Amino acid sequence: MNTGKPRKGEKSMNTTVTVLGLGQMGSALARAFLAAGHTTTVWNRSAAKAGALVAEGAVRAESVREAVTASEVVVVCVTTYDDAHAVLGPVADALAGRTLVNLTSGSPEQARERAAWAAAHGADYLDGAIMTTPPGIGSSAFMLLCSGSPTAFAAHRDTLAALAAPVDLGADPALASLYDTALLGLMWASLSGWLHGAALTGSEEVPATRFTEVATRWMNAVGGFMTTYAPQIDAGRYPGDDATLDIHLATMDHLVHASEARGLDTGLPKLLRDVTARAVAAGHGRDGYAALIELVRAGGRA
Amino acid sequence: MNTGKPRKGEKSMNTTVTVLGLGQMGSALARAFLAAGHTTTVWNRSAAKAGALVAEGAVRAESVREAVTASEVVVVCVTTYDDAHAVLGPVADALAGRTLVNLTSGSPEQARERAAWAAAHGADYLDGAIMTTPPGIGSSAFMLLCSGSPTAFAAHRDTLAALAAPVDLGADPALASLYDTALLGLMWASLSGWLHGAALTGSEEVPATRFTEVATRWMNAVGGFMTTYAPQIDAGRYPGDDATLDIHLATMDHLVHASEARGLDTGLPKLLRDVTARAVAAGHGRDGYAALIELVRAGGRA
Repeated sequence: MNTGKPRKGEKSMNTTVTVLGLGQMGSALARAFLAAGHTTTVWNRSAAKAGALVAEGAVRAESVREAVTASEVVVVCVTTYDDAHAVLGPVADALAGRTLVNLTSGSPEQARERAAWAAAHGADYLDGAIMTTPPGIGSSAFMLLCSGSPTAFAAHRDTLAALAAPVDLGADPALASLYDTALLGLMWASLSGWLHGAALTGSEEVPATRFTEVATRWMNAVGGFMTTYAPQIDAGRYPGDDATLDIHLATMDHLVHASEARGLDTGLPKLLRDVTARAVAAGHGRDGYAALIELVRAGGRA
Repeated sequence: MNTGKPRKGEKSMNTTVTVLGLGQMGSALARAFLAAGHTTTVWNRSAAKAGALVAEGAVRAESVREAVTASEVVVVCVTTYDDAHAVLGPVADALAGRTLVNLTSGSPEQARERAAWAAAHGADYLDGAIMTTPPGIGSSAFMLLCSGSPTAFAAHRDTLAALAAPVDLGADPALASLYDTALLGLMWASLSGWLHGAALTGSEEVPATRFTEVATRWMNAVGGFMTTYAPQIDAGRYPGDDATLDIHLATMDHLVHASEARGLDTGLPKLLRDVTARAVAAGHGRDGYAALIELVRAGGRA
């Protein structure tokens, strides 16, 4: 007897899923749904791209309308929101009662607009951001950020888990896009600091692989500092009991000088130092590092 | 019978240790040595600071000479290398046969100079950098970076483990200081990226604590990218198979615009974007992120 609920140890229930857009990412998504046992319908503007997926078990839809009406969950992953609208606009009437999962990259404002449009056509809407590249799809080590309809998230979390670890950011559909941008900024900043460190130690013949073993251990500690400082930001108070901005500023000078002495780019070290110097000049010298958020919020002014 | 070797489950062998300099950090070091069962002698220029430690079991030395001659391992933790030399210079003759562990912050060049000086006086020399603040001392979650005499490191690794997890960077005494500077740069860059993300999501009423839960998960992925990219740096080839600089550059524009739209500081986003734009203009558009190290090495020029 099929109770409709997966039993422990059993593969989760088959969901009907459609993937619109079969670029590198869309193809990876379709493969991950197939691997998880879901009935997967695929469509792409140029039909040739569906061939390989059909050979792997996907159902090819001959039209967008056929693709949309085939499934409970419709995933769209194209280049821009305008592209997504060009695909879905003509079949808006077919979306009622389905869940539209938009994994196309766009702005927070575009996500809110799409959610309102989907609601007007009777569809549940989730906006998502996949925090990995196509080769990482299917691994729970990466996050699938989701925002929008709470009922859609609750109903399809297990299905989406085939792609990456679903993270519920809440009902505002803009949040997946905003977090995506924020996390990419964190990534670029971290990678740039790491490249600078690799260049600095590399100037004394330390291989990047050797430096990186130590750097990745250190990243765990840095993550711990974030966890310590986050409540300070929410409270608006930044006690400097572990290290004050005065102390950071003095040490930042070492980084600038060590970089200059080795002919390295000093853009990043000087930016870090100058922001801190402005905060110190404005009276934050006895505060901790998190006090710098006040300058970020004020457009860089202390 | 004491065989001289610690048995399994037993505290490791008592080493005689001296701590010179009892500021916040020096006092934390002395406490951690005491907690690990080592005979700990302490000295400070102003004697009053030793009082609390003596009450906890430390031996107070009346002079630097008495302090140095009391122990196999002499740890110096004062404000500058000049201070360290002012303390140790007059008792250089007493260092022969001992291990000098310099945990004073300084430049790579100063570390090499101190190592040569110590060797000239018959002492083994280790330069160290403690990658935590005084409250973190005693936890193996943090690193004690060591460079210098390999025999001294091998002999005293277990003793130093009372302070933090000892990491052997090799025989060049400059490396602890250089890694310290490089890792602090990585920390400031990462924390600045995190503060920016907290400000960005905070503009839509996301608490920093909520953003940080997701950000710290993401930091694990970012550490994975470093591990993936490090061999590319050592090989001097930067395949863009996961994401090219062209793709990064387009997304960096979103970060700049999202920040501008919310009145946030655009210093960091623009710096990240402009470096990438220079690399793309120089023909690195199809390369991966690690290609940017060539600009760092070339003083920012592509």
